[in-house]
Amino acid sequence: MNQKFTQQDQRFMLDAIELAKKGIYSTKPNPNVGCVIVKDGQVIGTGFHPRAGQPHAEVFALQMAGEHAEGATAYVTLEPCAHYGKTPPCAHALVRAKVEKVIVANSDPNPLVGGKGVALLEAAGIVVETGLCAEQASVLNQGFLKKMATGQPYVRLKVASSLDGRTAMASGESKWITGPNARQDVQHFRAISGAVMTGIATVLADDCQLNVRQLPNIDITTVVQPKRIILDRQGRLPLTAKILQQPDQVIVMTPEREDLKQLGVTQLPVQPLDTLLTTLAADHHIYDILVEAGATLATAFLQAGLVDEMIHYIAPTLLGQLARPMFQADFSTLAQQHRFQLLESVQLGHDLRLRLVPTNGDL
Amino acid sequence: MNQKFTQQDQRFMLDAIELAKKGIYSTKPNPNVGCVIVKDGQVIGTGFHPRAGQPHAEVFALQMAGEHAEGATAYVTLEPCAHYGKTPPCAHALVRAKVEKVIVANSDPNPLVGGKGVALLEAAGIVVETGLCAEQASVLNQGFLKKMATGQPYVRLKVASSLDGRTAMASGESKWITGPNARQDVQHFRAISGAVMTGIATVLADDCQLNVRQLPNIDITTVVQPKRIILDRQGRLPLTAKILQQPDQVIVMTPEREDLKQLGVTQLPVQPLDTLLTTLAADHHIYDILVEAGATLATAFLQAGLVDEMIHYIAPTLLGQLARPMFQADFSTLAQQHRFQLLESVQLGHDLRLRLVPTNGDL
Repeated sequence: MNQKFTQQDQRFMLDAIELAKKGIYSTKPNPNVGCVIVKDGQVIGTGFHPRAGQPHAEVFALQMAGEHAEGATAYVTLEPCAHYGKTPPCAHALVRAKVEKVIVANSDPNPLVGGKGVALLEAAGIVVETGLCAEQASVLNQGFLKKMATGQPYVRLKVASSLDGRTAMASGESKWITGPNARQDVQHFRAISGAVMTGIATVLADDCQLNVRQLPNIDITTVVQPKRIILDRQGRLPLTAKILQQPDQVIVMTPEREDLKQLGVTQLPVQPLDTLLTTLAADHHIYDILVEAGATLATAFLQAGLVDEMIHYIAPTLLGQLARPMFQADFSTLAQQHRFQLLESVQLGHDLRLRLVPTNGDL
Repeated sequence: MNQKFTQQDQRFMLDAIELAKKGIYSTKPNPNVGCVIVKDGQVIGTGFHPRAGQPHAEVFALQMAGEHAEGATAYVTLEPCAHYGKTPPCAHALVRAKVEKVIVANSDPNPLVGGKGVALLEAAGIVVETGLCAEQASVLNQGFLKKMATGQPYVRLKVASSLDGRTAMASGESKWITGPNARQDVQHFRAISGAVMTGIATVLADDCQLNVRQLPNIDITTVVQPKRIILDRQGRLPLTAKILQQPDQVIVMTPEREDLKQLGVTQLPVQPLDTLLTTLAADHHIYDILVEAGATLATAFLQAGLVDEMIHYIAPTLLGQLARPMFQADFSTLAQQHRFQLLESVQLGHDLRLRLVPTNGDL
């Protein structure tokens, strides 16, 4: 931690981060933001952004603080906005409330608008300090921050395999390789995502819906469902597919189809994965994508270097050398391997969930 | 915990277990045993068995306690012996010292001699209670306890793979898939084993020695080295193999060879794995076997149901579908899968070590 921050500063910012987390299933495509306002060591206002279209974290916290906000310090997990969107800019609200100091975890990484919130505060004579608990706060908004910095969404690739790296028997038989805890866990990653992406083969095989059905201790009606994206290069998606029961939630990459258009399904022309990702972020405000697909699409994402994080569920079983491989690349030398950094390993029931980020092989 | 034991009992037995651990690299083929003698709530004697041929834990603890042992309680991790071996029976020593009570973690599972120590103590009027911290204590002596109960050694199978269950590229290229922490970790499992077993292919490919070379904070000269067992059905082991530099430490399953005999190498006739294991336990006092082998031998052990525990090192890398599979069974249905219970998952540097025990598929 930077020397300019005290332990007390850190504690209040961690409180703000905890507040921000209350919105993780419902703010999309907006970022998760928390705010704590402190005066004379006492918390006088707290808030978080609950949902797109509703007020930002700072507004709730300032409302609670009322006139006591004058001379106070505001801890905000993300640089306050300086633009008029669905709500007026938060930087103005902090200026009007006459806070003395604003401490920010993550600056806005958007090269066009980043820093404007800070500049606006500083122009009004408010002391601004940035970077406190930046790493912890950035976990809240991996997709938002990546999109603002690069134009691309954050891609999580979900894979599930046996100990020997197999996804199913050669026949396709695969039910229940991982247990209920692991399958439940996937719901969390769906719910924090702007979209769940899969290939047409998975839809045809499983008739899956890929929506969020259950989260522990969460009223499921408060969850903003992720869009469902189907990659269907040959236009094979049947109109009877269960996933089309909510057609306005579905985006299909397909040769143009009149029947899907009439159903209200968004269609995108067949294109390479990287331009597709850019399009989804720019035109559809999808900043976090969970790829839940078979080995073919998973391999394509990995080989194209488009995976930011791999979520690997491992079931404690051996399926043998005839079973289907999870990763289909035809490597012949070790130099070609895809290496990862292991961020975390968690036991879920009988299974294991690893979180891994690709490295450049320099481990 | 059984109601008859107090929290204080438990604490003293856990102390005795910690003492026993001091011998894990040096008592083989003897079990690890610790002893704590307590009087009026005070520890008056402690001991552990350090090495075959040296006194047992109880003897050291009684020596320290001296005449104060009279009327005391002895906590012993394994039922005191009642037979004359290299040292006189410990049960007699406890009787002579006039302890009042003996609390035992694990009874001796040997159907022929088990219970004799307890009977001898009880015949002398000493109160004996068994089963305190039995599970924790049994971890100290998995091989010894299994051998005494069944005649077979405890088999740990070490495997190392990528995330996609591969051990090497198709060409055989495989150096450094796992990192130094994982490789160091294997030394512990070698050092607690009566023998390290491998196949001739591994010896020919790697010219490995399979001995214990380094353990953190341990003087390596105090470690009783495991025997090295080579399965060589066709008698291909070259006399120049590094592993033969200590010929008296090597056992080879091979068609009989005069040259190996002259070198002082122990030879065993070619036989099925299960009878080989029985022979090693009965004739060679090898109760813990670490199998470090390629996929062929690993698969043979798994398919024969001879693995008690699989130690699976996983490197965070993907090697692709052409790379060599870790498990070569030709299963066609899920019903054939080998399921495990995951005991533990530990991160070692960049790698992961899983400890797994086979189940009957009823998870």
